[in-house]
Amino acid sequence: MIFTSETIEQLIEEFASLPSIGRKTAQRLAMHVLKMPKEEVANFAKVLMDVKEKVRYCSVCFNITESDPCSICSGTKRNRKVICVVEEPNDVIAVEKTHEFNGLYHVLGGALSPLDGIGPEDLKVRELIIRLNDDVQEVILALNPNVEGETTTLYLAKLLKPLSIKVTRIARGLPIGSDLEFADEATLTRALEGRVAL
Amino acid sequence: MIFTSETIEQLIEEFASLPSIGRKTAQRLAMHVLKMPKEEVANFAKVLMDVKEKVRYCSVCFNITESDPCSICSGTKRNRKVICVVEEPNDVIAVEKTHEFNGLYHVLGGALSPLDGIGPEDLKVRELIIRLNDDVQEVILALNPNVEGETTTLYLAKLLKPLSIKVTRIARGLPIGSDLEFADEATLTRALEGRVAL
Repeated sequence: MIFTSETIEQLIEEFASLPSIGRKTAQRLAMHVLKMPKEEVANFAKVLMDVKEKVRYCSVCFNITESDPCSICSGTKRNRKVICVVEEPNDVIAVEKTHEFNGLYHVLGGALSPLDGIGPEDLKVRELIIRLNDDVQEVILALNPNVEGETTTLYLAKLLKPLSIKVTRIARGLPIGSDLEFADEATLTRALEGRVAL
Repeated sequence: MIFTSETIEQLIEEFASLPSIGRKTAQRLAMHVLKMPKEEVANFAKVLMDVKEKVRYCSVCFNITESDPCSICSGTKRNRKVICVVEEPNDVIAVEKTHEFNGLYHVLGGALSPLDGIGPEDLKVRELIIRLNDDVQEVILALNPNVEGETTTLYLAKLLKPLSIKVTRIARGLPIGSDLEFADEATLTRALEGRVAL
């Protein structure tokens, strides 16, 4: 690249190496940083380092946390009888935002994907089984409704069956506010299969 | 927000404060940083600080540079008779990439925008006039083809007229690879006005 500053070029490379940021966006971000007050940039750099130093994974649920166990696992008001299994820490936020779930979580750290070489040993599956003591009455599988998520759901359901714990999965169907006319076949099929009595 | 780590929350805020990055993308970026090796994050933080410490504006052309004057202004192989006026440092890269221009640049630092309160005194207009010594034979105005860019082009053209220097602007017309059928009226009008003899 032809740029008059080596350092700016490096910063563009750093931004461009992040997911979902292309070369053009990286250029714009680097230019923005150049215009930011020095204290703000220093703070940005500090927070970046802080994240690597302070943030860990909870040893119980493997969600991200600064204190181990995390605030959810150590929360006294949470229902310890239900564990919601999700793929990533972001999914915990998504479920928490609904204010509908008061149980515990278990973050797998991904989903099974044989094509990418991700097997059960790459996820926190063993750690989930260990957590399932007599207190736990239900495991809710809340994985993404795509091929990897489905594979993981079926795998976990099979694995948990002998333990005589109730295993459920979140419903697949038409999203609220959508239009039946424009729903894809797969979604509509699942919605029909998952119909509930009124 | 309900997140189990204050520091991650701060990093999300930092990313979300950058242009063209929304809350969801910021979350994804923060999660990516969490998974990055510590040395890479340290390097990212260092480059961020370096940019603020090392990168300055060239005192001649106001492009970004680490050495003053910049490599283009101090280049011995550049044609010092032509100055290409652009809005931002990114535009210099865009023109350099064509390998069609071997002259000097002048970065205005924006465009005139009375609605946003940006007048000639907010741009490097005075500095441009000062640069126009007897050596300079042509000023090429390469500003964005939008309202602000047009305003600035007309303003500069009027300002430079008494100096008896050749003032040109880059052509507006159909972009290469586009379709005449789908061109908007304004572009096609400019393309017709700017027709050249064969």
